[in-house]
Amino acid sequence: MCGIFGIEGHDDAAGFAYLGLYALQHRGQESAGLVSWDGEHMHLERGMGQVAELFRRPVLARLAGRSAIGHARYSTAGSSVRANAQPIVVATAMGPLAVVHNGNLTNDRRIRARLEREGSIFQTTSDTEVILHLMARNPRADVVESLMVALSEVEGAYSLLLLTAQGLIAARDPHGFRPLVLGRLGDAWCCASETCAFDLLRAERVAEVEPGEVVQLRDGELRRYRLPASAPPSRCAFEHVYFSRPDSEIFGDSVAQVRTAMGARLACERPADGDIVVPVPDSGLFPALGYSRASGLPFELALIRNHYVGRTFIEPRQAIRDFGVRVKLNPDRRLIAGRRVVLIDDSIVRGTTSRKIVRMVREAGAREVHLRISSPPTRWPCHYGIDTPSREELIAARQSEDDIRAFTEADSLGYLSLDGMLGCLSGAPESYCTACWRGDYRVPVSPEQSRQRLLFPIVSEERE
Amino acid sequence: MCGIFGIEGHDDAAGFAYLGLYALQHRGQESAGLVSWDGEHMHLERGMGQVAELFRRPVLARLAGRSAIGHARYSTAGSSVRANAQPIVVATAMGPLAVVHNGNLTNDRRIRARLEREGSIFQTTSDTEVILHLMARNPRADVVESLMVALSEVEGAYSLLLLTAQGLIAARDPHGFRPLVLGRLGDAWCCASETCAFDLLRAERVAEVEPGEVVQLRDGELRRYRLPASAPPSRCAFEHVYFSRPDSEIFGDSVAQVRTAMGARLACERPADGDIVVPVPDSGLFPALGYSRASGLPFELALIRNHYVGRTFIEPRQAIRDFGVRVKLNPDRRLIAGRRVVLIDDSIVRGTTSRKIVRMVREAGAREVHLRISSPPTRWPCHYGIDTPSREELIAARQSEDDIRAFTEADSLGYLSLDGMLGCLSGAPESYCTACWRGDYRVPVSPEQSRQRLLFPIVSEERE
Amino acid sequence: MCGIFGIEGHDDAAGFAYLGLYALQHRGQESAGLVSWDGEHMHLERGMGQVAELFRRPVLARLAGRSAIGHARYSTAGSSVRANAQPIVVATAMGPLAVVHNGNLTNDRRIRARLEREGSIFQTTSDTEVILHLMARNPRADVVESLMVALSEVEGAYSLLLLTAQGLIAARDPHGFRPLVLGRLGDAWCCASETCAFDLLRAERVAEVEPGEVVQLRDGELRRYRLPASAPPSRCAFEHVYFSRPDSEIFGDSVAQVRTAMGARLACERPADGDIVVPVPDSGLFPALGYSRASGLPFELALIRNHYVGRTFIEPRQAIRDFGVRVKLNPDRRLIAGRRVVLIDDSIVRGTTSRKIVRMVREAGAREVHLRISSPPTRWPCHYGIDTPSREELIAARQSEDDIRAFTEADSLGYLSLDGMLGCLSGAPESYCTACWRGDYRVPVSPEQSRQRLLFPIVSEERE
Amino acid sequence: MCGIFGIEGHDDAAGFAYLGLYALQHRGQESAGLVSWDGEHMHLERGMGQVAELFRRPVLARLAGRSAIGHARYSTAGSSVRANAQPIVVATAMGPLAVVHNGNLTNDRRIRARLEREGSIFQTTSDTEVILHLMARNPRADVVESLMVALSEVEGAYSLLLLTAQGLIAARDPHGFRPLVLGRLGDAWCCASETCAFDLLRAERVAEVEPGEVVQLRDGELRRYRLPASAPPSRCAFEHVYFSRPDSEIFGDSVAQVRTAMGARLACERPADGDIVVPVPDSGLFPALGYSRASGLPFELALIRNHYVGRTFIEPRQAIRDFGVRVKLNPDRRLIAGRRVVLIDDSIVRGTTSRKIVRMVREAGAREVHLRISSPPTRWPCHYGIDTPSREELIAARQSEDDIRAFTEADSLGYLSLDGMLGCLSGAPESYCTACWRGDYRVPVSPEQSRQRLLFPIVSEERE
Repeated sequence: MCGIFGIEGHDDAAGFAYLGLYALQHRGQESAGLVSWDGEHMHLERGMGQVAELFRRPVLARLAGRSAIGHARYSTAGSSVRANAQPIVVATAMGPLAVVHNGNLTNDRRIRARLEREGSIFQTTSDTEVILHLMARNPRADVVESLMVALSEVEGAYSLLLLTAQGLIAARDPHGFRPLVLGRLGDAWCCASETCAFDLLRAERVAEVEPGEVVQLRDGELRRYRLPASAPPSRCAFEHVYFSRPDSEIFGDSVAQVRTAMGARLACERPADGDIVVPVPDSGLFPALGYSRASGLPFELALIRNHYVGRTFIEPRQAIRDFGVRVKLNPDRRLIAGRRVVLIDDSIVRGTTSRKIVRMVREAGAREVHLRISSPPTRWPCHYGIDTPSREELIAARQSEDDIRAFTEADSLGYLSLDGMLGCLSGAPESYCTACWRGDYRVPVSPEQSRQRLLFPIVSEERE
Repeated sequence: MCGIFGIEGHDDAAGFAYLGLYALQHRGQESAGLVSWDGEHMHLERGMGQVAELFRRPVLARLAGRSAIGHARYSTAGSSVRANAQPIVVATAMGPLAVVHNGNLTNDRRIRARLEREGSIFQTTSDTEVILHLMARNPRADVVESLMVALSEVEGAYSLLLLTAQGLIAARDPHGFRPLVLGRLGDAWCCASETCAFDLLRAERVAEVEPGEVVQLRDGELRRYRLPASAPPSRCAFEHVYFSRPDSEIFGDSVAQVRTAMGARLACERPADGDIVVPVPDSGLFPALGYSRASGLPFELALIRNHYVGRTFIEPRQAIRDFGVRVKLNPDRRLIAGRRVVLIDDSIVRGTTSRKIVRMVREAGAREVHLRISSPPTRWPCHYGIDTPSREELIAARQSEDDIRAFTEADSLGYLSLDGMLGCLSGAPESYCTACWRGDYRVPVSPEQSRQRLLFPIVSEERE
Repeated sequence: MCGIFGIEGHDDAAGFAYLGLYALQHRGQESAGLVSWDGEHMHLERGMGQVAELFRRPVLARLAGRSAIGHARYSTAGSSVRANAQPIVVATAMGPLAVVHNGNLTNDRRIRARLEREGSIFQTTSDTEVILHLMARNPRADVVESLMVALSEVEGAYSLLLLTAQGLIAARDPHGFRPLVLGRLGDAWCCASETCAFDLLRAERVAEVEPGEVVQLRDGELRRYRLPASAPPSRCAFEHVYFSRPDSEIFGDSVAQVRTAMGARLACERPADGDIVVPVPDSGLFPALGYSRASGLPFELALIRNHYVGRTFIEPRQAIRDFGVRVKLNPDRRLIAGRRVVLIDDSIVRGTTSRKIVRMVREAGAREVHLRISSPPTRWPCHYGIDTPSREELIAARQSEDDIRAFTEADSLGYLSLDGMLGCLSGAPESYCTACWRGDYRVPVSPEQSRQRLLFPIVSEERE
Repeated sequence: MCGIFGIEGHDDAAGFAYLGLYALQHRGQESAGLVSWDGEHMHLERGMGQVAELFRRPVLARLAGRSAIGHARYSTAGSSVRANAQPIVVATAMGPLAVVHNGNLTNDRRIRARLEREGSIFQTTSDTEVILHLMARNPRADVVESLMVALSEVEGAYSLLLLTAQGLIAARDPHGFRPLVLGRLGDAWCCASETCAFDLLRAERVAEVEPGEVVQLRDGELRRYRLPASAPPSRCAFEHVYFSRPDSEIFGDSVAQVRTAMGARLACERPADGDIVVPVPDSGLFPALGYSRASGLPFELALIRNHYVGRTFIEPRQAIRDFGVRVKLNPDRRLIAGRRVVLIDDSIVRGTTSRKIVRMVREAGAREVHLRISSPPTRWPCHYGIDTPSREELIAARQSEDDIRAFTEADSLGYLSLDGMLGCLSGAPESYCTACWRGDYRVPVSPEQSRQRLLFPIVSEERE
């Protein structure tokens, strides 16, 4: 999962791209990067860590030019993370190309193997780099054409921003799995994963980049193209459940309102005999508010989140029980003791975290704990850009709702139904991807695309 | 404002002190430090930045010993911040002494001038160092005695932890301005500014260190002493309004419950003709919940806070209006538009931030904005440890409530009354310090203690 | 100019490669890198700065495996230095390939342009990368064959080490411009630019890698191949004049002895009416010793070199005359005053440094300054790996010996003759490259190979 | 051993002090520091490492003011090195005081214990800090008077520079153990350990600061005072043997000329039946030149020193014999093989290094190795500022010359006689300290001044 942002035609392109990324940081804190184009050079700055830590004034000052794109990357396990940081920038016969990518291709390894046999040299294990090699192999006077050729070969999920000598180009796969919106800031154009980035910049949301659309922004002009392949839209409903910021508008709906509606629907579908409704912060906040309103039970902020949790937390030598959860969440005994708690969370993955939270709430004196989940059971891994674990690790893939209840040690458990969830969204039910709940993958995964990690034979470190 | 933590008699003293500080980070993110005692050496680690950034495993590993104290320091303007980081550790004829201090002395400059004339050499401009010099000048076989002599000379607010070859010593000034609690973790003792640090460690709260009390913790034993001077208690009510974490118990009350009660009381005292109740996060959350309940108006999380704001944020070259507030808070237009918003905040200092928020909410489409404040007007600076601006800068010191309303551009404004606020606390009204609202300072400030900053003639930098 | 080192079949391959580079540091202090192969991964560590600064124990510990190659790089002006640091390591269909290169190709830009048109993506502006792309385009089961194909296309000067899954491969261009020797250390093989690296490791010199030879070292076995193209040898005589360490054996001759002989020959060819012979350290030391012996004039160390000169020296705000030279060299007035000084240096490039030294010696009280140069006038730029300035900047390309004398302000000036210099070497005169003195370039430079710097359109920075 | 430098009344005081230190770096590379005075603040910059690494332009830019002092410190074993870095700067009732010190007090521990009992708090274990505490305890309107009182209590070796609000003050102990010279640079005054610092700045040497003299430099004026205690001069002859730079003038003599004379004298006193004279660089260079001239044997630079040896060299996992010496020195087999080598070094301490060098030369093919030492046998530790090992470790304290010869494995060994050595110096023989050769300590060491290290009970680390 990642956040991407681009801007074209602005005097402070790098400064505004930095801010745009900043507002998208909830989508990725592992690494971040920006590249700008000054008409002659691409200027690239990228590193491990959060946007706010990486970019200081002298760094931004080096990013000359009136257009820029940026990327905030989510942590995925494994080595070589550094080399895979984005933007990726390469020199080609068409001039330099820079790209940022949110999503996941499903046939990149097959293409990569072919290109390597033909003598291409890859710098990373990233699926994104395949697109650049396909473009380099198919140079055209019009870089949009070269991109169209490349995209005609790749499959899967992609919301892309490409910085070139011929302007900023945005592209979204035919299914439109991941979000991408277009905005206007004075005479400049901008593109972002979510509208909250526009709010910070005081830019105006213009439209979605449509599924299957390629948009070229150049010298203040906008040109729209369509990919030849067409497909039914398949927007990721999980963006609403968990990933997006509540103050964003995603696929035309307010995330906060969708989440509140899900909580209210959940209260109707799965009522609970409780005294208070308590959210697991932060993603449970809006569903809990909806649940509280629909059920009439009071809303209590009885789990407090520590917002200062650093990336490299040190566990004590002498173990503290349930420490990993406790360091992030503290139950307030004075609000909980003696009460029947309806605990609202957005989803259950492996079940182990939920069990720790249920235990912690019970130890804080709750008489009963009723766990309510504002989405259906997560039963299938995502191949389109969300870093879910394998099927074996997903508790709902293997266990019944009653077994899960027993595992989490809750007194009762209730999930929102799939129909209930889709009913909270304004689009047609079939226009959303529901693969993680139903396994109905709309883009198949190529056989070469084995589940195991592509191992790069080079382990490298660069130092100042 | 600062957070302090100490532990005595634990195999992983440094690891647990680090965690204790971690839970107290909301009290100070500018610098942090830990010192441990291994029976022979004090081991000091300290630096600029947050606890979670500063302490990595190899750093903690250097902090040998079974007792440790730590300090998280709040940002105060000005130079020499590095040299003033705590703990302060010095070598004396009684052996090494380490100290951490939450509070503010009111006569340290007079004492300091005298000691300098007598040949003492100070390393910092910190008031805390004065206590160590007074101890060094009055050595005793029993270090508690030496401390009692030193404390008999100083005036003001202090919650202190002292690490010595004779155990961990906690002390609180006779008025008990700042909190300090004592806890038990197996055979070990611990001390903290707030109980939330005990929750993380799964330690048990035992008692407050009483105003005017000195407690020595040594080899698992606890000895309590009283300072000769006695004074009426004068606990800082602002800890409840703003500073403490909501899941802490402060001066015997649950912070979350006190804040919710303040919000409810405010709804009764200052009702508003609104459609929704919106908190300014995070300190407005609980008062808004109380206001919503007492008024029957729906609670809406319509201002979203960006939790990734780093310490060194870069403003764009091309200015964005109200940027400083906007980067932290984003109003959700979809929740606000067309509504009459009752906006809940904990206090107004200069008024400029409130005005920016009111404007931002109005621009997001609010029909009316009714500002409600869950404490009385802040009219006087604090001399006891909170970093408030001078009287001239406090808007309520100069302007009437109606002028403040006009300044903030709200449609209406209402503060909680002082009696109302004190009524939400379980202690007797006269047992709280109300100097910031009424100017009734219970400890006078020495004339030498001029308001201007003590300038240290040495500006230094150390590098690896 | 660069130093390269490789080792195959050693338990501490990275540790010994580090030491080998260490002994070759005089050949390049701008950047350094090592790559090791553990049978599965290439481990790369590389950075800006000197070997001794970059490689600490934990860094070396990451370089697993029994074979390794390394590179110490000389500072050349311009941007993108970081990206051009070596080793270069890439993933190909034949497995990972790592390369280090001393020398300079003369037709790489023509090849590069062709490969880019065909879709290859280059990571650097380095000529070395061209060889890797040629190999990737021509994969063979036997990697030596792939290398032979690649080398059949490139022209110019190269002493190469290649680390592959099929062993360590050393190659030297048909002319053998730059040195490369093969050594034995127990059962391990090693390769180095100069023999001084073997001395430090207590390895034994076995033979030169011959001009036009490719040597594969694998599992303790050595296989020798010859490039199809053959050419007369053309060894760089400037290695003896300036570049190599005096304790190395280069092209079969002792550098110290050659330099001493050059000084003696110079004394015969260009005697001087002086009182003392003073070397410009360090490269003038041995010629001065030879001059002193042949002339009978006493040798005096009257110019002291400051060996602590860092890479980033700060000039004072208030200028000091001839500061750039003075900070490195200090004339000892007590040894110089009143004497006629015969000053020995190895060469004159632009003439400005020589003038500063002559002035400095004169200001220190020298009665006369007779400048003697232990090589012929440098009149042509090097295209084979030495970073000489353009023809316009070489003073001897434009001015007569007498004009140069006047420019340097010396009382007399004398260069060693070309025949004199070649007479000090044991090889046949025609077996040395003399292009910098005579302009007789044996490998022409391709027209695309314009003198101006290849500008890479990407300026990048990576940070931790 | 340390280098100190000061400047008063210069527009670029910090820049020139940095350069002065730079020229004195051979006296200490472990840590360095500068402090400047701008009339209001002392600006201190200090850190571990060499001058050239520590001071970058922005660092120097922070050092405002027209006067500055600096210190380069030699590595001495043990902890707390960081806290002991100089300059030491403190705030006193007389204003801020900064000090740098070359030398070693012999009664500081007795004074320190007394001051600690009286309540003084020390920041370091450095003897230098005692002087500042004595001044703080004895404030005077005229800071020179306060210094005179302080110096009347301390004993031992000190060349001091003090930066104060009343100018730059230089002081030298009555015996004048360590050097200190006064220079003039336009209207500014400067002070340095050695004249080579003046050469770099193009300053002019004016005079020594005499033994027992205090010199105040203020507003361009110079005032000279004498300490009441008088004592016979006792200049450190080892400065000439080893420590000073050859191009300096020390105690009125040229170091290079003294060393050359020592070598010549050594050739007369201890001739050797050899073929070539080979110096151990760098300190053996000048004595070897003298020996070569007096003996008529040719001078050969057959041991090459690697000047890139970093501070933290990594030994290979698989040991290399005599590695510690080999990494610094490489014998040139082509110059040595088959010859009888007369090897010249300045002194023998433990004998182990000499043995390694003799072995290395013999392995390089020397037929015989005759070791000649240009100073008498070192038999006693220095208490006046040179970091010699204890008596037990000095080989000449325990063994006869013949045993030492056997230990070093040389074919013959010869030291310069004490009379011979003193005969090379222009001062009266009794005006030099000869304690390290004869044990005739002119200032006794106080009994409290135990040989073991003063252990500070605080181990600290500061990080950014």
